[in-house]
Amino acid sequence: MDYSTNDSKSTSKKKVVAVVGGGLVGALNACYFAKRGFQVEVFESREDIRQAKIVKGRSINLALSHRGRQALKQVGMEDTIVSKGIPMHSRMIHSLNGTQSPIPYGKKGQVTLLLQRLHTPHSAETYSNTKLNFAHKLLNWSTETGAMTFLRADGAKEEIQADLIVGCDGAFSAIRKQFLRQSRFNFSQTYIPHGYLELTMPPINGEFAMKPNYLHIWPRNTFMMIALPNLDKTFTCTLFMPFDEFENVTTGDQVIEFFQKYFPDAIPLIGADALKRDYFCLPAQAMVSVKCSPYHLSDKCVLMGDAAHAVVPFYGQGMNAGFEDCLVFNEIMDQLNEDFSAVLPEYTRVRVPDDHAIADLAMYNYVEMRSHVNSKWFLFRKYVDNFLHIIMPRTIIPLYTMVTFTRTRYHEAVKRWHWQDKVRNYIVHSSLYKGL
Amino acid sequence: MDYSTNDSKSTSKKKVVAVVGGGLVGALNACYFAKRGFQVEVFESREDIRQAKIVKGRSINLALSHRGRQALKQVGMEDTIVSKGIPMHSRMIHSLNGTQSPIPYGKKGQVTLLLQRLHTPHSAETYSNTKLNFAHKLLNWSTETGAMTFLRADGAKEEIQADLIVGCDGAFSAIRKQFLRQSRFNFSQTYIPHGYLELTMPPINGEFAMKPNYLHIWPRNTFMMIALPNLDKTFTCTLFMPFDEFENVTTGDQVIEFFQKYFPDAIPLIGADALKRDYFCLPAQAMVSVKCSPYHLSDKCVLMGDAAHAVVPFYGQGMNAGFEDCLVFNEIMDQLNEDFSAVLPEYTRVRVPDDHAIADLAMYNYVEMRSHVNSKWFLFRKYVDNFLHIIMPRTIIPLYTMVTFTRTRYHEAVKRWHWQDKVRNYIVHSSLYKGL
Repeated sequence: MDYSTNDSKSTSKKKVVAVVGGGLVGALNACYFAKRGFQVEVFESREDIRQAKIVKGRSINLALSHRGRQALKQVGMEDTIVSKGIPMHSRMIHSLNGTQSPIPYGKKGQVTLLLQRLHTPHSAETYSNTKLNFAHKLLNWSTETGAMTFLRADGAKEEIQADLIVGCDGAFSAIRKQFLRQSRFNFSQTYIPHGYLELTMPPINGEFAMKPNYLHIWPRNTFMMIALPNLDKTFTCTLFMPFDEFENVTTGDQVIEFFQKYFPDAIPLIGADALKRDYFCLPAQAMVSVKCSPYHLSDKCVLMGDAAHAVVPFYGQGMNAGFEDCLVFNEIMDQLNEDFSAVLPEYTRVRVPDDHAIADLAMYNYVEMRSHVNSKWFLFRKYVDNFLHIIMPRTIIPLYTMVTFTRTRYHEAVKRWHWQDKVRNYIVHSSLYKGL
Repeated sequence: MDYSTNDSKSTSKKKVVAVVGGGLVGALNACYFAKRGFQVEVFESREDIRQAKIVKGRSINLALSHRGRQALKQVGMEDTIVSKGIPMHSRMIHSLNGTQSPIPYGKKGQVTLLLQRLHTPHSAETYSNTKLNFAHKLLNWSTETGAMTFLRADGAKEEIQADLIVGCDGAFSAIRKQFLRQSRFNFSQTYIPHGYLELTMPPINGEFAMKPNYLHIWPRNTFMMIALPNLDKTFTCTLFMPFDEFENVTTGDQVIEFFQKYFPDAIPLIGADALKRDYFCLPAQAMVSVKCSPYHLSDKCVLMGDAAHAVVPFYGQGMNAGFEDCLVFNEIMDQLNEDFSAVLPEYTRVRVPDDHAIADLAMYNYVEMRSHVNSKWFLFRKYVDNFLHIIMPRTIIPLYTMVTFTRTRYHEAVKRWHWQDKVRNYIVHSSLYKGL
């Protein structure tokens, strides 16, 4: 390999972009940089993840909505991926007595697509100027020179010289560790008190056991269960509960007792025996919210996706925010002529407030999904919101709609939401007073 | 050295406590554990810090108030240290036109002591069961066994086995790195946009250039300067300002221009030539606020002082909070009979909310000191607070008094402050309406 880029300004030689992390955001980024003509090297610490099996109990489904689709569209990947998704247009609330009530997400045609696993690395490989390097563990890299050292599976070390390092290596990013050693890098990681545990609801007579195309929710205030459809007609049920409550359930009989009390309608659908067994397959998994700033280090490195902003999974925006990172970076590359020394600080300036906003919203929804969804006042407000949106479609747009079905910047969606909240409350209260 | 503690339950052998960090909190902790009869080993990565010189421009003075004094008292160190301090009983506000107005901190006799440097390691050495190990850099330690490896100045490695590891190694704690690798460890580091820069105001005819026994403040909204007296009759002036504004001042003439605009009365006192020169001695220093939770890892390790909670310096509580950590831990050791497996989780439970509260308060004061102190409304409120405290001394206690002159738990002081705020506002408003 000839990566000598001593004369990085020379146009005769392709600049090298090293994408660290071959997951969803890394692979999409590889496509973006490849499309621009860079020499792209993707480094993934695991073995070829396309051959990896889905691990039972750790498969949180991926929700693809507008932002993610726009980002895929730009590199021609939207259609292929959309064809593999299950459209989901409503929540379905399961009450304690077993009744089910749907709450639509948005207007007709506004759907979120559920994906199980994306094999985006495949797409990156269709570019001849892209190379996927699996089983390459990052040992060290220099913020000054862009020199990187990897440990290969065969025990040998490999050195490369990158003009730009793109850290897409997830919530526990190795790239980000170098940022932590710099002065004035703001960072937080917050674990929520809840853990999650996955259970499978098998098909009945070859068909889905419940209505597909819905996000099924059993909101129970301090905890909740959700269920999402898979292509094989199963549902993945995810129980979210404080860790101490998980610790209180230690035997199969206690599992059944617990489900009888809170999710009686789910027992026959999952199956009592499977429930007793699968509940103990894996311990409850932790969920972390990561925020940091800045996203760049000199003109050599930038963080994207979970490495920059791991969010809790309650807004279905984790993957979408990560994909939109690539799109936003790409837009800034256009505006500033691929000049990394200008693009990187601008990316931090533009993107940090938006990613922080979606991290906060996901945390907010963590409370809303398990409690408010239950309350009449919440349902009434949703109803008013949707009604106002119908009569004033450009003035009042529900927050969920802005986040999920538009590219309104996340932080602007939040600002607008606070403003709309005041307007809505004013309308509701004056209507009540006037007896309307 | 014989550190074999395979049978750590044996009462015939002293348990080994390894204190990592030989700074203020580490040294005080060493005294506490030594007093209890443990075999104490203090490890400090630097050379003997008692021989280190004060670095010009990096000497932020230490404010010792009630909590710190109580913690020192418990190990018989209060009197010696108090004798070396300069008492400070008021703020002195310097307005733009040069007038100076004092604002007392509390009641008569309530003073904060200013210290320049504490040689606490000396005190730890008075215990025969304590050993100070300087120039010992921590390489590795095990959360399971308490085995620790250090790199000595001579290049040799040294291994020890500790029953308890106490991480007092400051805001950038090496011990804390191990915590970050554990699941469900919450952590944040936040740099404020301001940096600080220190200047020296020399004595005039062998006497202080301004009134000593005051915290001199030049509040200028987005930035401020403070000055604190030293034993050698100098003042240390500290300029707090956003980093971008520091960057705007690049020449000696610009420094003078800047001071003429904002701190004209300070120019003759510091001296124009010294000002031009010293302003550029060191770049502006960053300030970080660190929060984390839990403070313990299994029954082997606990974090205290800045390693657990670095705070910005605007409440003068950094050292006091760190010293109070030792005192609180000591109290819990009494309650739970030195059983580390019970003491450590209890310490986390009790201390985290208090340390988080003082970190937030210090951040709040960072805004208050440079802006509110200027406003009439703020001064009026302070006046009302002090008045109410005089007529209802047990009901209304100013926040500053609770924090600085009592051991009211920090988080309870904050709670009470919010409650008092409501009461005070109610009294103020009803007085105004009644024309009182």
